[in-house]
Amino acid sequence: MSPPVKVFGHPMSTNVARVLLCLEEVGAEYELVPVDFLAGKQNDPQHVQRNPFGKIPAFQDGDLVLFESRAIAKYILRKHKTDDLDLLKESSSSSSSIEEEAAMVDVWTEVEAQQYYPAISLVVFECIIFPVMRGTTANQEIVDGSLERLKRVLEVYEARLEKSRYLAGDSISFADLNHFPFTFYFMATPYASVFDGYPKVKAWWEGLMARPAVKKVCANMPTDF
Amino acid sequence: MSPPVKVFGHPMSTNVARVLLCLEEVGAEYELVPVDFLAGKQNDPQHVQRNPFGKIPAFQDGDLVLFESRAIAKYILRKHKTDDLDLLKESSSSSSSIEEEAAMVDVWTEVEAQQYYPAISLVVFECIIFPVMRGTTANQEIVDGSLERLKRVLEVYEARLEKSRYLAGDSISFADLNHFPFTFYFMATPYASVFDGYPKVKAWWEGLMARPAVKKVCANMPTDF
Repeated sequence: MSPPVKVFGHPMSTNVARVLLCLEEVGAEYELVPVDFLAGKQNDPQHVQRNPFGKIPAFQDGDLVLFESRAIAKYILRKHKTDDLDLLKESSSSSSSIEEEAAMVDVWTEVEAQQYYPAISLVVFECIIFPVMRGTTANQEIVDGSLERLKRVLEVYEARLEKSRYLAGDSISFADLNHFPFTFYFMATPYASVFDGYPKVKAWWEGLMARPAVKKVCANMPTDF
Repeated sequence: MSPPVKVFGHPMSTNVARVLLCLEEVGAEYELVPVDFLAGKQNDPQHVQRNPFGKIPAFQDGDLVLFESRAIAKYILRKHKTDDLDLLKESSSSSSSIEEEAAMVDVWTEVEAQQYYPAISLVVFECIIFPVMRGTTANQEIVDGSLERLKRVLEVYEARLEKSRYLAGDSISFADLNHFPFTFYFMATPYASVFDGYPKVKAWWEGLMARPAVKKVCANMPTDF
């Protein structure tokens, strides 16, 4: 048996959490090698050899070293895909064509990156991350603007989730999982109730939070700073 | 024969150019349906039906409608892949495993999105896009900061391109193509000579610019505003 893969990073990091969630979803064994990013250890030469941009996570599977959390996550999902578990839908065998199913995963994965993340992340940065890392208090103007932007995005999600159970169709995919890290921290801000206005989105989120893999990753993401 | 696919957008848009370049690279027939984004036509109800976020491009292939340029581009590359032309490397037949080759394309595709784009795009926005769309002049502090950030990114690229001809290995991939739209406009700013400090990167870029598909897309991207 090959040794477990290694993830270099800290479980509180949203980008590390993305990778850990995929490992948990596919049931892969892994070793989490701590890199204390609050102390700047991601810039140590040893880590820069793994990730030339000095960011976490980095990932090792035998001789293969990868960086960029979304790329790592896709590698994990491809490597461990089975007929029953194909979270990228690159090879499923339903009635619609493979290209179309994979395209819907890509569309909603990109929507998370390009539309959802820019809105929700600023609220999390202002209310949770910057206060811890920089000792600042939230800039209310940025928070309010981001919440307005987030509401417009959630309107589109509500309409989408009226048509299908998950974002890329009726089964869960990488597109849904990608929403976990920042939404998890958003729910610890004073603005969690924003989701109450979007019942389909809220039910979708509660469904994600009920997954055993999500619960396991959450356990190492404290929000009571 | 099925009718050509449709791209809804404007060829000057970097996100539209990404899609057009992939169509040209695979030699697919397509129809470009103009959406005048300078006049805000991407928010017309007809276009919002295609892209619920009111952005360009949108894409249609028969009954399938897609949005988000990176997702559209991947759909095109998957649909038209052959043994000789597999720009996502999801099914190539070299000695290294398929998962590893696809992972390297994903890593450098993400590097473009997360490291390269945030640095180079601000220079393009300040020097070219905002002056045209908002009538402003470049904020030199933002430009200078972005150039410093870009240089640090280009250092990593130089080291990478000393080891392989292209970013994801010795053959071209989607990861390289993704750099085209913003680098093309960057070369029309007063800072093009920044690339002179990175000879491998400069040769890689000149190689991209020499491709017939790139030349064809460039022809509709004027830089003499």
